[in-house]
Amino acid sequence: MSTRENSVPWPTLVKVTKNCCSPDIPPVATVKPGQVFKIECVDWTGAQVGNNDSSDDIKNVDLTKIHNLSGPVAVEGAEPGDCLVVDILDVTPFEKMPWGYTGIFELENGGGLFAQEFQSRACKAIWDFKGVYATSRHIPGVRFAGVSHPGLIGTAPSAELLATWNKREGELIAAHSDSVPPVAFPPEPKGAYVGQELDAEVMAKIAKEGARTVPGREHGGNCDASAFIKNLSRGSRCYFPVFVKGANLSVGDLHFSQGDGEMSFCGAIEMAGIITFSTSIIKGGVEKFALKQPIFLPSPIDPLYSSKLVFEGISVDVHGDGKQYNMDTTVAYKQAALNTIAYLQKLGYTREQAYLLLSAAPVESHVGAVVDSPNACVTLALPLGIFEFTRTSDRTFFPGKRD
Amino acid sequence: MSTRENSVPWPTLVKVTKNCCSPDIPPVATVKPGQVFKIECVDWTGAQVGNNDSSDDIKNVDLTKIHNLSGPVAVEGAEPGDCLVVDILDVTPFEKMPWGYTGIFELENGGGLFAQEFQSRACKAIWDFKGVYATSRHIPGVRFAGVSHPGLIGTAPSAELLATWNKREGELIAAHSDSVPPVAFPPEPKGAYVGQELDAEVMAKIAKEGARTVPGREHGGNCDASAFIKNLSRGSRCYFPVFVKGANLSVGDLHFSQGDGEMSFCGAIEMAGIITFSTSIIKGGVEKFALKQPIFLPSPIDPLYSSKLVFEGISVDVHGDGKQYNMDTTVAYKQAALNTIAYLQKLGYTREQAYLLLSAAPVESHVGAVVDSPNACVTLALPLGIFEFTRTSDRTFFPGKRD
Amino acid sequence: MSTRENSVPWPTLVKVTKNCCSPDIPPVATVKPGQVFKIECVDWTGAQVGNNDSSDDIKNVDLTKIHNLSGPVAVEGAEPGDCLVVDILDVTPFEKMPWGYTGIFELENGGGLFAQEFQSRACKAIWDFKGVYATSRHIPGVRFAGVSHPGLIGTAPSAELLATWNKREGELIAAHSDSVPPVAFPPEPKGAYVGQELDAEVMAKIAKEGARTVPGREHGGNCDASAFIKNLSRGSRCYFPVFVKGANLSVGDLHFSQGDGEMSFCGAIEMAGIITFSTSIIKGGVEKFALKQPIFLPSPIDPLYSSKLVFEGISVDVHGDGKQYNMDTTVAYKQAALNTIAYLQKLGYTREQAYLLLSAAPVESHVGAVVDSPNACVTLALPLGIFEFTRTSDRTFFPGKRD
Amino acid sequence: MSTRENSVPWPTLVKVTKNCCSPDIPPVATVKPGQVFKIECVDWTGAQVGNNDSSDDIKNVDLTKIHNLSGPVAVEGAEPGDCLVVDILDVTPFEKMPWGYTGIFELENGGGLFAQEFQSRACKAIWDFKGVYATSRHIPGVRFAGVSHPGLIGTAPSAELLATWNKREGELIAAHSDSVPPVAFPPEPKGAYVGQELDAEVMAKIAKEGARTVPGREHGGNCDASAFIKNLSRGSRCYFPVFVKGANLSVGDLHFSQGDGEMSFCGAIEMAGIITFSTSIIKGGVEKFALKQPIFLPSPIDPLYSSKLVFEGISVDVHGDGKQYNMDTTVAYKQAALNTIAYLQKLGYTREQAYLLLSAAPVESHVGAVVDSPNACVTLALPLGIFEFTRTSDRTFFPGKRD
Repeated sequence: MSTRENSVPWPTLVKVTKNCCSPDIPPVATVKPGQVFKIECVDWTGAQVGNNDSSDDIKNVDLTKIHNLSGPVAVEGAEPGDCLVVDILDVTPFEKMPWGYTGIFELENGGGLFAQEFQSRACKAIWDFKGVYATSRHIPGVRFAGVSHPGLIGTAPSAELLATWNKREGELIAAHSDSVPPVAFPPEPKGAYVGQELDAEVMAKIAKEGARTVPGREHGGNCDASAFIKNLSRGSRCYFPVFVKGANLSVGDLHFSQGDGEMSFCGAIEMAGIITFSTSIIKGGVEKFALKQPIFLPSPIDPLYSSKLVFEGISVDVHGDGKQYNMDTTVAYKQAALNTIAYLQKLGYTREQAYLLLSAAPVESHVGAVVDSPNACVTLALPLGIFEFTRTSDRTFFPGKRD
Repeated sequence: MSTRENSVPWPTLVKVTKNCCSPDIPPVATVKPGQVFKIECVDWTGAQVGNNDSSDDIKNVDLTKIHNLSGPVAVEGAEPGDCLVVDILDVTPFEKMPWGYTGIFELENGGGLFAQEFQSRACKAIWDFKGVYATSRHIPGVRFAGVSHPGLIGTAPSAELLATWNKREGELIAAHSDSVPPVAFPPEPKGAYVGQELDAEVMAKIAKEGARTVPGREHGGNCDASAFIKNLSRGSRCYFPVFVKGANLSVGDLHFSQGDGEMSFCGAIEMAGIITFSTSIIKGGVEKFALKQPIFLPSPIDPLYSSKLVFEGISVDVHGDGKQYNMDTTVAYKQAALNTIAYLQKLGYTREQAYLLLSAAPVESHVGAVVDSPNACVTLALPLGIFEFTRTSDRTFFPGKRD
Repeated sequence: MSTRENSVPWPTLVKVTKNCCSPDIPPVATVKPGQVFKIECVDWTGAQVGNNDSSDDIKNVDLTKIHNLSGPVAVEGAEPGDCLVVDILDVTPFEKMPWGYTGIFELENGGGLFAQEFQSRACKAIWDFKGVYATSRHIPGVRFAGVSHPGLIGTAPSAELLATWNKREGELIAAHSDSVPPVAFPPEPKGAYVGQELDAEVMAKIAKEGARTVPGREHGGNCDASAFIKNLSRGSRCYFPVFVKGANLSVGDLHFSQGDGEMSFCGAIEMAGIITFSTSIIKGGVEKFALKQPIFLPSPIDPLYSSKLVFEGISVDVHGDGKQYNMDTTVAYKQAALNTIAYLQKLGYTREQAYLLLSAAPVESHVGAVVDSPNACVTLALPLGIFEFTRTSDRTFFPGKRD
Repeated sequence: MSTRENSVPWPTLVKVTKNCCSPDIPPVATVKPGQVFKIECVDWTGAQVGNNDSSDDIKNVDLTKIHNLSGPVAVEGAEPGDCLVVDILDVTPFEKMPWGYTGIFELENGGGLFAQEFQSRACKAIWDFKGVYATSRHIPGVRFAGVSHPGLIGTAPSAELLATWNKREGELIAAHSDSVPPVAFPPEPKGAYVGQELDAEVMAKIAKEGARTVPGREHGGNCDASAFIKNLSRGSRCYFPVFVKGANLSVGDLHFSQGDGEMSFCGAIEMAGIITFSTSIIKGGVEKFALKQPIFLPSPIDPLYSSKLVFEGISVDVHGDGKQYNMDTTVAYKQAALNTIAYLQKLGYTREQAYLLLSAAPVESHVGAVVDSPNACVTLALPLGIFEFTRTSDRTFFPGKRD
């Protein structure tokens, strides 16, 4: 008799695609509903950023090469109109790479929420992981539990959906052709990569039409970013609409942690690592649940920071033009962030440290009110438990050194 | 000996002001730091809405009469540049009025987030309170714990600050003079009311210059709306900047509960009731904490709904123009709300019931990502514990009737 | 039209009974299922303890006069075998008495968990209430949110059940007749009081047979103490077995807050105040749910202290006899408590302050393991957020004085 | 440049010891403070139980071979009187063994809380792990998130402390020599195993004197069981007293999940797997913190089940002798457990399924009151979210099959 019987290891499935998302990319593997499988992911830049103290790699990131995704993986039996249920069983860094980074990108290369206000120059914080906690030699005095999650996850779009995206985004780009940073990114053959030997014609079609993976999109396609689902951590369940046979699930851009808003563009703690999935199918789920975009059931094991300081912002840009905006929630979010940054500077952090910290730590941002004209209101909640110098539980009570 | 000694009742202070907010309104009472006091508040409309099954009162609300505030109350020793610390000790409905309401306003009278999309017609849900719980005969199948809070609370603005508001909002109004509903509301002598006998000249000045109380504003003035601080419930602490001698704290627009966003305009569960305060002063707090707007320390006793279904929205208006918006967080919020409404309709609710429910229940809306051009992303989390038919703890387990 | 219509105040029902619990005590009022009603309660001693700085009143408490209960209240339609559902809508101190107390009783008069180890002498801490928070001039440096609850609540026992109690407790008393403090308390005519004019014969029977209200008992009778249901706060629901027609619900011994174990005997923050109820009936509920004792559905609004220091105890009494006990969970609890007290003394508190604090604050005690012979294991979790000097959120961040 | 630089894998350290715990067992490895290291652990029985549907292996477990521990590991610089800080960075099953078991042991071989009441016969439930969740083919209808933790963890005892244990436990055994199951277990040469080649004389001394590892003990020695610290999961920090040079940390008996009390003896979900640690030292910590036994700072990422049904028990054994016990918390715990089991049987579970489920699931047991003579009171809280048929979030809302 042996306790080691009855078990087989979970298979690891991985192929990297870059920069594009298309129904024409064939699946690299097929799984059965109920099967557990793992996917390895490089970081979103494809290893362009190193564990060191220079920001040059951030400055020079080649953005035509992002995002790196792994997949797609087909699920047996999934058909257009179904709902693909995806259980996220685990999200971890590679064991040999217990670190990640948060970056502020240059105004001219990537930008970020305050690219223009701050005339952003490249800046980087390296985070070291010890179990669930992250600390940074570049932002002293903080330590927090990460809620590791995929920045991008989604099923493949249909050809019709992809055409819709390219049309409407193309119109926006056309209307703002001089914008720095650009307002959106069209399909870009340069850097397009699907990790497979494909027929030249198919490859050219993908490169030409495949949507860029920068934004999330409404129908949860292949490149749909759930960068905005901060707490999509292990134990979570996702419900995706299926647009193509097999669903063709892709994933990438793993984060160790992220603040609501991911404000510095490369705002999460970016990492390379492994995600473990199991799937099932709800036939006809799109109709059954009015599934226009993915729906999520968060994990019961999110970190709990009960003490928070809440900052607010309204849609008036006092930091620059003094102008009144009309119910602009983005302006309100920026204001809340600027108020929090000003406060963190009072605690001794530089503006860049504050900006990086708010991007990376488990900060919550709520839409307060969007109906009291003309001011939309947004709050940003800073958990006090992330600060070592406030974690007196370990200082007043147990003043031993943290290793 | 007696256990009834050593105690005096807390004083109740109240004067109603309406529609305007100005440094020229004298305080109706003065309190000492550390003193506990209570303030009675009518509902925000000043009792224009009744506990009945007709929506006519919502349709005909006279908006020149809102908001009704109580105060101002001066705090001894508070001076411009100080931080006024306000502890919210309790927020309750009047014992004889254990009910409140949520309303959808007419497109032409108040509007709301979906005023135009839905061509809004007046609609009302009455909520009955039993202890911490609310139920509605107009929205069956839900029951949830309220996080009662003030919709408006703030210190008085200085003359300079008031002038800034009037200038910038005036410019916005001028630029959108045809908008229905209006983009903002200028000072309005009609309905202005300060609850006190004042010199005619002072009264005229207040009526002419006093800011309308509809929006929150950045510096936490008298009429600053914290409508957007949903969880500002009993046990919370607020830090306000002080602009005038005495700080002149006003409060009103009490809510039994509210969803993030308060989307239907009269979106919270509006109620009349009593709020209990205690205050203290931090000298020079504005400089010390970079206090540009109020900061809040939430209560430790918020309701805990651990199971939630999370919907997302991006800045594409698929429901109407199909257009791509450039990082517009308000559009993303609307999308998330529309997706949730569509889902609730699958459960059997009407569109109006869903709209009212999302406004009133403890729904959370997070700003997901505001950096992945061109799509800003917002999520809306629906707590499943509010549904009676999912609270199987009381059905499968204890299938007795409620109440 | 008026918003003040459609409402009637909730009735306040109150009669005090003392010291005894019996099916022969007639109800003082009858309510209908669904009706909201309030019950006023004196503190458990009947106002024997005052808001002052002397412990003499604790020393001299007349224990023949406790517990003071209010009721009983009959519920229309409740019959033996039914389940009485009781919703606790609110628990508050009297507004004019915003204070309570925690006491250590004398070894010879009441005792407590460490009566013998500490050779207990009377000691008292007065707590001042401000909203949800309590502070004490006798235990500086702590401030915490209370979870106010009834110490005693229950339905009336049947004659048979009462006879069972008196028999088995009588046997225990007989077997330990010399114990100080006593192991249990038989019916005691002295001090028996039912708050009503009754026939002399009935009164004599009640006084002679009525169970003392000190302990909780298994079938949730009239005097059943739910002193052990710490979080039975507003928003909670209780399911009681019904033993007599009308159920005859009594309540008393209100607590502002209590630690698991209530170790100092008068260990909670004892207060006088008002409890608000609503009831319903599940016919045949005793059989349906195997209802041997009450079952509870806690409130969703318990305070949340996420950071805790956990102490453990095992069933070895190293503090005295050094003896090994056989899986004795009470010894393990005492050990955990003594370890915590030793730790609090390192922080500068006296042994008595620590003892009172652990009794009164929201301390949690878990039964760890009861199967690893010979050591039962118990833990005691001290929430760090109750200490003002660790609430750096208000010191490092906002170092203003607390009033 | 490479993102794979700057990193080295964490070393895996492992040696198995069995059945005994002694200062004479030399460390198998030495680590530096701050170093991250992993320890592999077999399950507590040393692989005597298999993933199958027969309970024969439970019936025949050779208890002289338990517990299997891994270690000891010495920490450089740790000396008697210091506090060893141990951070638990991760606890996982072996990837190839995603399953565990819970067992009821025979009355004559191991027993358990209800060994005598139930005349226990061997019974086993196998649990399958998918990410953070466990399900069992032997207990249908439940699925819950595990809080994986070590059942045993501790530093080595000094010779003096070991002598104290052997003396006092020997006296208890002598006083109850006929008990079935036994009240405690003396040192037992049979099965003693230290996983190392040692001098014959040293080995004989260890086998003769080394304490059995069944119970937790007060001073956190090598074999100290923290079986009772349910939530000692990844992200937690432990503070152990140091009794020998190097501290000599051992660990074993990993659990995927456990209910408070671990009532069925082999009550947790037992598993084999890997635990990852980092350590630091607080010099003189024993004196500084009155460290009589280990202290713990739980993880911020415990699962959150907000809806619970709470059962109570008092120290009266109505299920057998009907006798009144004097403040016996163990009896009260048993009563609470029996009440819960009776309730679960109403839901369709067998008594054995209920017994296993309460042992394995995240059930909480609180010590309610230990001062209301003669009844100690204990509660047991059953989280409703563990039941699939109540998780209507996935049924009413998303009625797809769970794989």
